[in-house]
Amino acid sequence: MKGFLSDNSSSVHEKVLQALIDANDGHSYPYGDDKYTKELKELMKTILGPTALTTVMFNGTGANVIGLSGILNGYECVLTVDSAHINVDECGAFERFTGAKIICVPHVNGKIDVGLLEEHLSVIGNVHHNQPKAISISQATEFGSVYTIEELKTITSFAHKKGLIVHMDGARIANACVSLGVSFKEMITDTDIDIVSFGGTKNGLMYGELLVTFDEKIHEKLGYLRKQGMQLASKMRYVSVQFLAYFKDSMWLSNATNANKMCQRLFSELSSIEEVKFLSSVDANIIYAQFPPEWIEGIREKQHFYIMDETKGIIRLVTSFDTTKKEVERFIHDVKVVHAQHETLMD
Amino acid sequence: MKGFLSDNSSSVHEKVLQALIDANDGHSYPYGDDKYTKELKELMKTILGPTALTTVMFNGTGANVIGLSGILNGYECVLTVDSAHINVDECGAFERFTGAKIICVPHVNGKIDVGLLEEHLSVIGNVHHNQPKAISISQATEFGSVYTIEELKTITSFAHKKGLIVHMDGARIANACVSLGVSFKEMITDTDIDIVSFGGTKNGLMYGELLVTFDEKIHEKLGYLRKQGMQLASKMRYVSVQFLAYFKDSMWLSNATNANKMCQRLFSELSSIEEVKFLSSVDANIIYAQFPPEWIEGIREKQHFYIMDETKGIIRLVTSFDTTKKEVERFIHDVKVVHAQHETLMD
Amino acid sequence: MKGFLSDNSSSVHEKVLQALIDANDGHSYPYGDDKYTKELKELMKTILGPTALTTVMFNGTGANVIGLSGILNGYECVLTVDSAHINVDECGAFERFTGAKIICVPHVNGKIDVGLLEEHLSVIGNVHHNQPKAISISQATEFGSVYTIEELKTITSFAHKKGLIVHMDGARIANACVSLGVSFKEMITDTDIDIVSFGGTKNGLMYGELLVTFDEKIHEKLGYLRKQGMQLASKMRYVSVQFLAYFKDSMWLSNATNANKMCQRLFSELSSIEEVKFLSSVDANIIYAQFPPEWIEGIREKQHFYIMDETKGIIRLVTSFDTTKKEVERFIHDVKVVHAQHETLMD
Amino acid sequence: MKGFLSDNSSSVHEKVLQALIDANDGHSYPYGDDKYTKELKELMKTILGPTALTTVMFNGTGANVIGLSGILNGYECVLTVDSAHINVDECGAFERFTGAKIICVPHVNGKIDVGLLEEHLSVIGNVHHNQPKAISISQATEFGSVYTIEELKTITSFAHKKGLIVHMDGARIANACVSLGVSFKEMITDTDIDIVSFGGTKNGLMYGELLVTFDEKIHEKLGYLRKQGMQLASKMRYVSVQFLAYFKDSMWLSNATNANKMCQRLFSELSSIEEVKFLSSVDANIIYAQFPPEWIEGIREKQHFYIMDETKGIIRLVTSFDTTKKEVERFIHDVKVVHAQHETLMD
Repeated sequence: MKGFLSDNSSSVHEKVLQALIDANDGHSYPYGDDKYTKELKELMKTILGPTALTTVMFNGTGANVIGLSGILNGYECVLTVDSAHINVDECGAFERFTGAKIICVPHVNGKIDVGLLEEHLSVIGNVHHNQPKAISISQATEFGSVYTIEELKTITSFAHKKGLIVHMDGARIANACVSLGVSFKEMITDTDIDIVSFGGTKNGLMYGELLVTFDEKIHEKLGYLRKQGMQLASKMRYVSVQFLAYFKDSMWLSNATNANKMCQRLFSELSSIEEVKFLSSVDANIIYAQFPPEWIEGIREKQHFYIMDETKGIIRLVTSFDTTKKEVERFIHDVKVVHAQHETLMD
Repeated sequence: MKGFLSDNSSSVHEKVLQALIDANDGHSYPYGDDKYTKELKELMKTILGPTALTTVMFNGTGANVIGLSGILNGYECVLTVDSAHINVDECGAFERFTGAKIICVPHVNGKIDVGLLEEHLSVIGNVHHNQPKAISISQATEFGSVYTIEELKTITSFAHKKGLIVHMDGARIANACVSLGVSFKEMITDTDIDIVSFGGTKNGLMYGELLVTFDEKIHEKLGYLRKQGMQLASKMRYVSVQFLAYFKDSMWLSNATNANKMCQRLFSELSSIEEVKFLSSVDANIIYAQFPPEWIEGIREKQHFYIMDETKGIIRLVTSFDTTKKEVERFIHDVKVVHAQHETLMD
Repeated sequence: MKGFLSDNSSSVHEKVLQALIDANDGHSYPYGDDKYTKELKELMKTILGPTALTTVMFNGTGANVIGLSGILNGYECVLTVDSAHINVDECGAFERFTGAKIICVPHVNGKIDVGLLEEHLSVIGNVHHNQPKAISISQATEFGSVYTIEELKTITSFAHKKGLIVHMDGARIANACVSLGVSFKEMITDTDIDIVSFGGTKNGLMYGELLVTFDEKIHEKLGYLRKQGMQLASKMRYVSVQFLAYFKDSMWLSNATNANKMCQRLFSELSSIEEVKFLSSVDANIIYAQFPPEWIEGIREKQHFYIMDETKGIIRLVTSFDTTKKEVERFIHDVKVVHAQHETLMD
Repeated sequence: MKGFLSDNSSSVHEKVLQALIDANDGHSYPYGDDKYTKELKELMKTILGPTALTTVMFNGTGANVIGLSGILNGYECVLTVDSAHINVDECGAFERFTGAKIICVPHVNGKIDVGLLEEHLSVIGNVHHNQPKAISISQATEFGSVYTIEELKTITSFAHKKGLIVHMDGARIANACVSLGVSFKEMITDTDIDIVSFGGTKNGLMYGELLVTFDEKIHEKLGYLRKQGMQLASKMRYVSVQFLAYFKDSMWLSNATNANKMCQRLFSELSSIEEVKFLSSVDANIIYAQFPPEWIEGIREKQHFYIMDETKGIIRLVTSFDTTKKEVERFIHDVKVVHAQHETLMD
């Protein structure tokens, strides 16, 4: 069923499997006291700077919610966009675990516009309202757009001036880095992001997510919150070695580079079809496109992808570390066949 | 560092790794819509009976808490023993996620005595008290004892008469089955357990836990609660195939049989040393023993294990699917050397 | 400081005080087992029909949140408008206590448009999203508009067809009734509202709110949830007698009638001033008006009211059971003086 | 039904009612911005010292839970005795609102023994366990005993050395003060209590409780937590004036003095009856006594009181600010009649 449904549909990179096999060497201390996890924590300091403090989690929702729970009191709120994963795709995990509230502003191309946040800060000091404490952004966004370094700095600068903390949901953080052509450090540490959910599962890992902060007090809390949030892996070494393999020989880079390239190829080919419209900029490995609704059924018969709105013909295409040129070509071919059929019909 | 620290310290059975490799065959639907998860759900019906409904989770704490959250309202409570994992080892995950309360009675050899529960049912109908809704037991218990079939039936019969639901924390469920010499169905379904956290990680898996209930209404809730509880694995096939491998050729059985056998061997050898006392019956793969406190340091220098109370010399020894006779002999040898040293000292 | 700031600023009706004095007759059973509370529960059956089940609460936020907590599981959500009190004025009490989510649609004149809800029902069955379980409406709305009987029936009919429960936030329920010229039964029971926060504090009481449902199962839960939600008054008789006085000789009716009349008088007078715009229909005892921003300061010097947006000159005026004609005339006079001053300035 | 059921059964002191009438003077700012609340806050500084910061709540459960929520993170815990009101009488309000855990030690005469707390501090730094953050004590205790100044200092000294905060549940704080013959300042401020739920409802008020802390950071949080915890009274002046009346002319003192005196009289009379045993020291206005079980029915026919354990004949007697000598004598008389009947029967 290989296709463009989701990067969660993709398999695991073979080097990750090899790392799991290699780590299967007898006993080790559980709950993160193993040598692999220690090595990973050190490695993250190399990658993101010496103040980076890493907590190993099971998954992205866990990293997002536990991370924010380390920052917010229950009477506070996080500001984000209506399309944010924490707002629409996590079944209220944030509200349930933190007791706090998500305040949304409309997204612009999947991104947050700090200009729209100002009015939500007017409630500061008013006991009837949840108090703003953090801004959460997704990099890349759920729509496939990527914040530029400049945009990130604008957000963190605004936030810090207002006493807010910035959380980055990095489910597709490698794809964002590749898109910008910068290092993780340049995109996270140097832009003053305070805490990041550092994903890998959508880019070739099996499971696991890192929660990285630069604040010792927050980091200390996360250890307890992770356990209380049911995110503490007993045999943690099997998460950590995946990330070690991920960073070794820049596997993350080649994986994300392939996904992004394949996405650009898909985008480029689709752009040449007049009837296809794009609903967001295509910066990473996601395309939101609008097809003539009558095409959808025909394409769906041959391809896997999410249909966001069948009536309007809006679909989402996601490429992955293992997407091949041939698969892209096949998709374009299938679209063109359907296109042609409909042109014939209209003649 | 192989030793007797914890079955969480053990590695992953090689057949599990092979299953992960085999499942790494291209794309699949995420979040449990893959063929492996479907196969696993069917398999669990074969194992536990046709009404068994399975939800795949990340870990044991997740299974315990999410499972209980599918049963309890926030104003209700679960009755269990003071030594229960949900009470003392999960950093309050239960309270935070469910908002409900744990009411404890003192354990007897790690087990619950239903006679002690009666007084806690006197609050039924009193709005000042959390209302009893469930009993939670661990099988095997945290102390290594195992409820007999008769004891389980006494608990479920008592519970159901009182309108309570019975949850079984099965972190070491295979070890319990082996100890009793019965099938999973005989121990769970036929004793009328309502919901079980079905573990495997302590018996050769890498990660993952099953939550099995026989009630469709509870099962339906669990789907949402799992996501809200941050326990939904995106690439779920990699959990499911582990369990498929676990049940294939009864790998669970041979794994747990080895662990229990090694534990009995350890127990038997230690029993011959007069100074060693046992704090619980040794039914599964755990030994709670009391050594002369002055022996501890010497043994610790050569062996890994948990020291529960250094002053009193209380330690916990856990065997695993990969524990070898040689390791047991080595431990006994090390103990005897320390024993001899101290005898000499006393002469 | 009498003025138009809020009906929460108003005093307590003298008959309520007299009722408190009368009830101060020795000892009584605490926590609602007193004769006054029993009498009140019976009275509510007379008022709303024999199936009405009443729970006495401390305040409106408590009634809203505890009421909804009796309906929703944590993984579910309530649908309401962005301007709803539970969404913007209760500091996240709903999220913290229920763990669930509020899904908002834009209000239309303070009201909910069921047409806008349809799209939020598309997530039913999708584990990534909180599941819709209830619709919450405010009657009268926070903007001072009042749903017609027809509109209420449209909402409950839509809701019940979709399996949703309808909650009514009745902080100003008496004002709504007076506005529609119907009985409480016609507005609540006969329109099939499922649960209502029945307020009185804004209409002459000192404190207390009733939570009325017609469903025995929900009602039973509310007893425990009220205690867990810190809303159980120990000396409950002093809440109940207020409501008994409230219904006696239709005090609620004359109080709300005065508030609404004074509001209409204010509205009528303001309508004659060309520069004043109205942002919502004026059905109850609230006016949302837009004044020329430069007038605000002058009026504020002499009058009390909320300024919603100073830059835009948006203010809220609330009349109360004790608002007098003279106070209304004084307000209009003060506005006209400021008006005249500005006309002179512009000449 | 006047009797010894509970001080919650008692009425409201007439001066409190007069204060409510006096405060009913037109409009005032809601939510605590009124002059009475401001005056009360100042008064509390006079009573407890200039650093005392007061938050006005609806009731005792609210004050306890909101107060502790201002101190604890969800992964932390409060240490208290098994008999604590927050543990057994608040339907899990603490767990639901804070997400944290209550760790209990067995009470000794209703009091906490710091010696028993030590072992619960051994989990500090262990992520599997809720982290101790506070100690909560009740003064007077639920059993009617009262901590001496020395005992209080021992607790706060122990707590502060360990980095713990001390919360005092002062539902019967006036009775405790009277019992010790000290001022509120001597009992609270000078013993280094960090936060106190300062009750009055059981001693002549209608409703309302104060939450007093000496820490500005905690106090600031409480403003938001009170609203989120549904404890913010809109017409707050009617709570504040009760406390103003309570402190005026030391009404609290004469009320509690009467209650305690009547309790001592009751205790003294009962002590003379050989068959009556006492289960706790009688320091305030509560008696826990054990009667011959066969007496209970006869006494109950004529008197109101709580039967804690009918089989064992354990009952609770509570005196109140309005308990009269005659009522005490009547109770003793009724007991003696029953006593005599049973003696006759046994002859």
